[in-house]
Amino acid sequence: MKIISFEGIEGVGKSTQISLLKEYLESKKYLVEIYREPGSTITGEKIRDILLNNSSQLSDKAELLLMFAARAELINQKINKSKADFILFDRFYDASIAYQGYGRNLSKTFINELTLFIECPEPNLSFLLDISVEEGFSRKTNDTKDRIESAGIEFFNNVRNGYLEIAKDKRFVTIDASNNIQFIHKSIIKNIESLT
Amino acid sequence: MKIISFEGIEGVGKSTQISLLKEYLESKKYLVEIYREPGSTITGEKIRDILLNNSSQLSDKAELLLMFAARAELINQKINKSKADFILFDRFYDASIAYQGYGRNLSKTFINELTLFIECPEPNLSFLLDISVEEGFSRKTNDTKDRIESAGIEFFNNVRNGYLEIAKDKRFVTIDASNNIQFIHKSIIKNIESLT
Repeated sequence: MKIISFEGIEGVGKSTQISLLKEYLESKKYLVEIYREPGSTITGEKIRDILLNNSSQLSDKAELLLMFAARAELINQKINKSKADFILFDRFYDASIAYQGYGRNLSKTFINELTLFIECPEPNLSFLLDISVEEGFSRKTNDTKDRIESAGIEFFNNVRNGYLEIAKDKRFVTIDASNNIQFIHKSIIKNIESLT
Repeated sequence: MKIISFEGIEGVGKSTQISLLKEYLESKKYLVEIYREPGSTITGEKIRDILLNNSSQLSDKAELLLMFAARAELINQKINKSKADFILFDRFYDASIAYQGYGRNLSKTFINELTLFIECPEPNLSFLLDISVEEGFSRKTNDTKDRIESAGIEFFNNVRNGYLEIAKDKRFVTIDASNNIQFIHKSIIKNIESLT
């Protein structure tokens, strides 16, 4: 089983690229599963409702712990039991470092301890789809924002800069997401060749 | 503000003693608030539903993180803003060490790190109401057990023994909960004199 995660702020086109990659891998007869966080389990979806509900009063620390509770469930119930050849993550634990660490200014050391505590598997490969916050937001066509999306531009600039730091790890490939969809898809395909 | 926590397994009579102590303190014109965990906030009650619902498939680690997410909310929204003279806790963070640490065998070091992370205030005084697991269970009159209560006798013996270890701390007073209600109440009153 290979795990590939897609990271990036809103509007970078993660879902589109994940769908295209799934189609590609399935055309090669691989079994592919996609997971989004938080969610993908019954408990995780309940946690997602708490996290994304605009009316929820929620401290940054509770937000972090809820994210990891949902993640622990996902790993326990799904990832560890998966028979898939490829698991594609629409954001994974790097997002906690980017959003809660760089964005909310919570301890990155503690977030890494949480990752160890829940025995989170490391992706074999991670893509950062990078774009300026302004361009990312201008691409979002839906008018309603969830609780986390409602944070301001400074928050998202911190998240983006955090992602750029995280993506210095050799596990990451950073892609300029202002390129067109097919160009990005081809770049992704080229990078996963070593895993197929 | 003084914080007093009541700890112990099921059936030791915590709620009864908390009510009696509240009455006593209010008769002395103190402002008293009672909190139960998990819960006491809108988010906390949603988390409580996930935790205690028998149909929830929930890993031990997710259980722990959910408990602390609810606790972070409680501290942030209620405890830190409270104007009460006395806050009485029907279980507090020691319960996480007893239930998730000793009971579920999760890292007690990590649980203490979580307690530090959410900046949990330490109680001024804690009572352990101690009773054998068999006697505690025989006192529970309701037939339906929640998800955590449904764990077996070995689990609760581990929790009880954990509580006895925790209560070696000088913050704790351990009371034999097989005594009658008024005797226990008087013992509690005597011990809180130094706080009033």
